[in-house]
Amino acid sequence: MTDTHKLTHVDETGAARMVDVSAKTPTVRRAVAAGRLATTADVVALLRDGELPKGDALATARIAGIMGAKRTPDLIPLCHPIAVTGVTVDLEVTDTGVEITATTKTTDRTGVEMEALTAVAVAGLTLVDMVKAVDPAASVEAVRVLHKEGGKTGEWVRP
Amino acid sequence: MTDTHKLTHVDETGAARMVDVSAKTPTVRRAVAAGRLATTADVVALLRDGELPKGDALATARIAGIMGAKRTPDLIPLCHPIAVTGVTVDLEVTDTGVEITATTKTTDRTGVEMEALTAVAVAGLTLVDMVKAVDPAASVEAVRVLHKEGGKTGEWVRP
Amino acid sequence: MTDTHKLTHVDETGAARMVDVSAKTPTVRRAVAAGRLATTADVVALLRDGELPKGDALATARIAGIMGAKRTPDLIPLCHPIAVTGVTVDLEVTDTGVEITATTKTTDRTGVEMEALTAVAVAGLTLVDMVKAVDPAASVEAVRVLHKEGGKTGEWVRP
Amino acid sequence: MTDTHKLTHVDETGAARMVDVSAKTPTVRRAVAAGRLATTADVVALLRDGELPKGDALATARIAGIMGAKRTPDLIPLCHPIAVTGVTVDLEVTDTGVEITATTKTTDRTGVEMEALTAVAVAGLTLVDMVKAVDPAASVEAVRVLHKEGGKTGEWVRP
Amino acid sequence: MTDTHKLTHVDETGAARMVDVSAKTPTVRRAVAAGRLATTADVVALLRDGELPKGDALATARIAGIMGAKRTPDLIPLCHPIAVTGVTVDLEVTDTGVEITATTKTTDRTGVEMEALTAVAVAGLTLVDMVKAVDPAASVEAVRVLHKEGGKTGEWVRP
Amino acid sequence: MTDTHKLTHVDETGAARMVDVSAKTPTVRRAVAAGRLATTADVVALLRDGELPKGDALATARIAGIMGAKRTPDLIPLCHPIAVTGVTVDLEVTDTGVEITATTKTTDRTGVEMEALTAVAVAGLTLVDMVKAVDPAASVEAVRVLHKEGGKTGEWVRP
Repeated sequence: MTDTHKLTHVDETGAARMVDVSAKTPTVRRAVAAGRLATTADVVALLRDGELPKGDALATARIAGIMGAKRTPDLIPLCHPIAVTGVTVDLEVTDTGVEITATTKTTDRTGVEMEALTAVAVAGLTLVDMVKAVDPAASVEAVRVLHKEGGKTGEWVRP
Repeated sequence: MTDTHKLTHVDETGAARMVDVSAKTPTVRRAVAAGRLATTADVVALLRDGELPKGDALATARIAGIMGAKRTPDLIPLCHPIAVTGVTVDLEVTDTGVEITATTKTTDRTGVEMEALTAVAVAGLTLVDMVKAVDPAASVEAVRVLHKEGGKTGEWVRP
Repeated sequence: MTDTHKLTHVDETGAARMVDVSAKTPTVRRAVAAGRLATTADVVALLRDGELPKGDALATARIAGIMGAKRTPDLIPLCHPIAVTGVTVDLEVTDTGVEITATTKTTDRTGVEMEALTAVAVAGLTLVDMVKAVDPAASVEAVRVLHKEGGKTGEWVRP
Repeated sequence: MTDTHKLTHVDETGAARMVDVSAKTPTVRRAVAAGRLATTADVVALLRDGELPKGDALATARIAGIMGAKRTPDLIPLCHPIAVTGVTVDLEVTDTGVEITATTKTTDRTGVEMEALTAVAVAGLTLVDMVKAVDPAASVEAVRVLHKEGGKTGEWVRP
Repeated sequence: MTDTHKLTHVDETGAARMVDVSAKTPTVRRAVAAGRLATTADVVALLRDGELPKGDALATARIAGIMGAKRTPDLIPLCHPIAVTGVTVDLEVTDTGVEITATTKTTDRTGVEMEALTAVAVAGLTLVDMVKAVDPAASVEAVRVLHKEGGKTGEWVRP
Repeated sequence: MTDTHKLTHVDETGAARMVDVSAKTPTVRRAVAAGRLATTADVVALLRDGELPKGDALATARIAGIMGAKRTPDLIPLCHPIAVTGVTVDLEVTDTGVEITATTKTTDRTGVEMEALTAVAVAGLTLVDMVKAVDPAASVEAVRVLHKEGGKTGEWVRP
């Protein structure tokens, strides 16, 4: 295992720390993360139901995800507070649940993938909250980064 | 579809609302939720590595999960602020990642499963943050309620 | 000026304090507050526009108002943290803007009107944020309590 | 209605989003917003009362307004977190209430008027909280931008 | 060392947890904590200076302390969120600095001394912030509980 | 007393304000602050106890300190929100307690010593919370800046 295979957030004695990024150059960075609400056909019918008022159910999750992205440094202990410059949360109702995709951008010294992952997780939890009276077994699945670009490490695409 | 098959968090016109629970009786309630960090054997070795200082990596996730439980009403738009009376977050390193289990308790008017789910999700995201330099593909899987008890609906065990 | 004509949140020396309510009995309390986004006919047309996708504009304000109610003790220095047990935010698009009405409930030792007022103000500011590119002069007007009930002082209706 | 007459915070399908400002240049920006606490002569007398200790009543509102400006991205869902570089909140007791003026500055990619408006609203709500035992009908009126400058759109003065 | 000599916030394996207090009875509890800003004669003169406008310097610290008490569960990882029912922060300018005393009350399942200590610490840090341009060596000293009462353990007075 | 001997956070009328730093140049800045948990030999033995699981006790304080640094602008009313680019919190168990040292870095327009002091204070309070069942008289002592550098005023070392 090489030197690059280290947990960067703990020092050589194992103590947690917020890594010093002062010397890094601010650059435009972008991350895309995704996840999925897994639920029943009943819930899918309720969410899909062509009637317009249902809009709030998805809107609530979308807004929770966007706001969640902004709370990332409050939630993830060793994350740097960064200047999030854009967030979108896309929700697509499928036959087995809701596909959640979040895209985040920044012009800062460190990557924005934790913000995208947090947006996905919070949107997913908000969907669970809204459907749990109908489906108490609803779950949030596969919260993961799909793509990131910008910064020293450059582009990464999920294999 | 029966009356019980409704999304309780939107009213008949589809507008989001925080459901009125004033008339409910405070009772002891408990919820258990779980999830999993899926990662590589390399990361598992780093987390497992018998050397004690590594403790902080898991401790950071445990504490983030506990603190995350307390932030639930700030994150999930329609959740009631409740008096969380106990939280534990258990982490077990396995061959393919980390199993995350959170138990939350309250003595309030509404259930505490969103707090347990939020603890799991935040602990999972914190683990991703700590290992992402080694495994950028690490993901949080299967965030779900295992068990809940207390309140009018009584006990529910994941089928 | 009688004894009841005092600013309760400052003591006899003028120092700010959070008033001690330990001895008060928890009771069901309810408050209704209102306010108005004043904007142009152009914006009204955009908000009203029958096309369904526009739903998010109002949904965003509704959710911001509900979440804002929960943040009241973080924002208003001398407010007690209370167990908000229900919040609704109603938005009605009129010819001159949007009428905002918030209803909050609690079962606690002190009133819930500041939570209702905060919900109205935050919903109003969110609407301003969404329309300001079209109408930079949009304003939030007449944020006020309409009605409150519960607690020792009983019912109050705006004259 | 031209293309510039769009609600920028919802996309073409109506979904809420945080607009991407990564490509904008950081510049010094300044905004001034105002509002008014409308209350009774009794309250005005209490606030004006030459006796010095009363200072805390106005100081509490001033500080709440300044702190509120910093909470703007937590409250307004689609607001970007920006680096607020200065805030003042001025309060002037008049015969019919308190005139509230907030000035905010930033050196960032987007305007600072929502921060100024939030400072005014929170200061106003704090004043309501402090006087509501004497005047339960106190209201916050006319929360609006007076002036903004900096950025691509340049100066705007309330007509 | 007896069983009562344990760190209650870590379990038998050493893992941090929020202790379960569900079974405890809510009772009125009160705590008094104190601390001291240690600074120079120059700063004392500025704070004391009979001229009234200086009021804001102390008012800012008083309000920060009160608001800080409410943020305790957000700051101290294993603290329970409790219903704070009253907070006062007293500041007394002495020849060598400012004596800070905070009194907190609750009617809940667990003690309120962490809230009193947090109020003192935040008030002290706020004073440091205000005087640091004049005295960069200003410090916060002796943040400690003086007295607590209520709950199963009853009264405790600092020896 | 010269002009430089002013409380910068209040204006000439004594009103609190967030000082305008828009015109300052972002530079790398660094601060080191320290403090001490004073406690009994019993507690020291519990914290020191070679057995590894105890790790969480110190890890909890370390993480609370790091997260506390990020909450500084939420706690200290007149502090600017700044881009914290690195935080470490070091804890050293001594015969009479725990020495706490925090180092913070930023690349912004204003200093980072309040963030370092807040990290120390929050880590100290967290330690008090963890040991208070064993030592209710535990205190946080001597929270002070040791060193700062960067910015117009350059280096300052505690005399």
